[in-house]
Amino acid sequence: MQGLWLESGSLDFREDLEEPLAVRNETRVKILRAGVCATDLALLRGYMDFCGVPGHEFVGIAIDGPLRGQRVVGEINASCGSCDTCKSGMEGHCPTRTVLGILHRPGAFAEQIRLPTANLHRVPDSLPTDWATFAEPAAAAFEIREQVALSPGSRALVQGDGRLGLLCAQVLALEGLTVEVSGRHPEREEWLPNGIGHLGTEPNGKGRPGYDLVVEASGDPYGIVSALNAVRPRGTVVLKTTTEPSPEANGDLDLAQLVVNEISLVGSRCGPFEPALDALNEERLIVAPMIEAHYPLSEGQRAFDRASQRGVLKILIDVNDDDAN
Amino acid sequence: MQGLWLESGSLDFREDLEEPLAVRNETRVKILRAGVCATDLALLRGYMDFCGVPGHEFVGIAIDGPLRGQRVVGEINASCGSCDTCKSGMEGHCPTRTVLGILHRPGAFAEQIRLPTANLHRVPDSLPTDWATFAEPAAAAFEIREQVALSPGSRALVQGDGRLGLLCAQVLALEGLTVEVSGRHPEREEWLPNGIGHLGTEPNGKGRPGYDLVVEASGDPYGIVSALNAVRPRGTVVLKTTTEPSPEANGDLDLAQLVVNEISLVGSRCGPFEPALDALNEERLIVAPMIEAHYPLSEGQRAFDRASQRGVLKILIDVNDDDAN
Repeated sequence: MQGLWLESGSLDFREDLEEPLAVRNETRVKILRAGVCATDLALLRGYMDFCGVPGHEFVGIAIDGPLRGQRVVGEINASCGSCDTCKSGMEGHCPTRTVLGILHRPGAFAEQIRLPTANLHRVPDSLPTDWATFAEPAAAAFEIREQVALSPGSRALVQGDGRLGLLCAQVLALEGLTVEVSGRHPEREEWLPNGIGHLGTEPNGKGRPGYDLVVEASGDPYGIVSALNAVRPRGTVVLKTTTEPSPEANGDLDLAQLVVNEISLVGSRCGPFEPALDALNEERLIVAPMIEAHYPLSEGQRAFDRASQRGVLKILIDVNDDDAN
Repeated sequence: MQGLWLESGSLDFREDLEEPLAVRNETRVKILRAGVCATDLALLRGYMDFCGVPGHEFVGIAIDGPLRGQRVVGEINASCGSCDTCKSGMEGHCPTRTVLGILHRPGAFAEQIRLPTANLHRVPDSLPTDWATFAEPAAAAFEIREQVALSPGSRALVQGDGRLGLLCAQVLALEGLTVEVSGRHPEREEWLPNGIGHLGTEPNGKGRPGYDLVVEASGDPYGIVSALNAVRPRGTVVLKTTTEPSPEANGDLDLAQLVVNEISLVGSRCGPFEPALDALNEERLIVAPMIEAHYPLSEGQRAFDRASQRGVLKILIDVNDDDAN
């Protein structure tokens, strides 16, 4: 089958990839569309020493299994289901898990993938395929709600106006928080819903802003330093993006501040798909303005190049036609 | 009056200090006994650029106000009571607060102090003065219970077998957790109650121990690095001690680990006095074995020297006689 192969820092279109075999309790999925994510760009730079087919944000059509013929999206962590971590309900943290397009499981920049059937979620008929490719990052934004008690009316700052930051800001606004976003693209305020404000690049210029909640989604290694300055005593900082280790930025990190101000710092990763699909379908989450361009699978390298440009929010790769199941 | 004066890295016994004046809503307290804390030793090394009378762990007798003649202990943060932070119930984080013996308020290594009356708590008659000097650090240990949902039966590691670590371990055991302590003094396991185990210095030698909760109370700047290795995915790390900023240790800090494993890192400081006094009075918290020696106020420098020695848990300074009110 056709797909993109990432190895030693290069990404190649290949037509000789092996289709996934049928496996009990797993479902094969014909990929319609897949989104290029910052993690994919990091893999290309060497993150995880990845070798194989990347891609983990997708919409496809189930080839077999109980969802056969249905349009589906999928959770990316495939767990063993039998270890203590899985049994305690934390399948996403299974120590022997594979992760679609990231760790020991071929990803979605290919004609077909295979995932545990339990990972798949049906896409509502009225939800466009393009929008549904945001299910995975939107679920990650909804994860904040699972981890932190959100009080309507409290003040939140989202650091970073990239795709994940904009999704987090919208989810917090849906929960009734007063939300401000910082970042390099104040023009994005125009289409942000629910009264979300944009502060530009220097929200913490002076004094102690005292936000109840700060979500760090800028991917900047100094983001945590400014987040600790922006949050109020006993407030919460949610770290939503991983950054490559930065001894320089960490050198500016004053952990005594965390203790003296009794701040909670919460690491946050993947999240629940159902509320994300509902919010996308009901247009409570706006994603259409984020889609910059579509590329065919055969132009994967061009798609990655474009996705790497500053200010580009979302590049989609068209794999199979929607009507061709 | 007599007291210890700390200035430019030296500590002197002086007899010419001014007694505190009477102030509305504050109470003057005749100090009976005061404990030397690691923070006091840090002040002597230059922390906070402190100049004045240190000391913030004390038992005394109220000289005036509604508690006159009673034995009291006191919360150390004196807040304005009228700013937004105070009004939201976080008086301990008031931006213009003074802190007894630490920030703009003369401390307890002197014959008298003054604190807001609302900060004082009566010491139960049956609680020995020596034990009651542990009220402030014991309250700090009880703060964990205020910030983190503790589940009986879950597994906790306390890093650090100094005074604060041993108090934290006991509080967690009282809450029904299975508690292990790491540190340099395995012999302390002998008197620790409630089945608390001691692991020695290398609890994380191999693998991922997977504690539900790790309390970092070692004061070692590398403590946070080992805490993040010791906690399970979605577990909680409580930072209980401030350390001087360490770019080297922070360089080993992998914040991506916090995100990928969805760990919560909670800064924790002072805490509630009432449960601490109750637990001390009912001997549910054991502190007697921690008291190494008493020194008179006039030998303050010797007391600090002794408190600085490795393995010394608690040095008390006798200020006034208990029966001399």
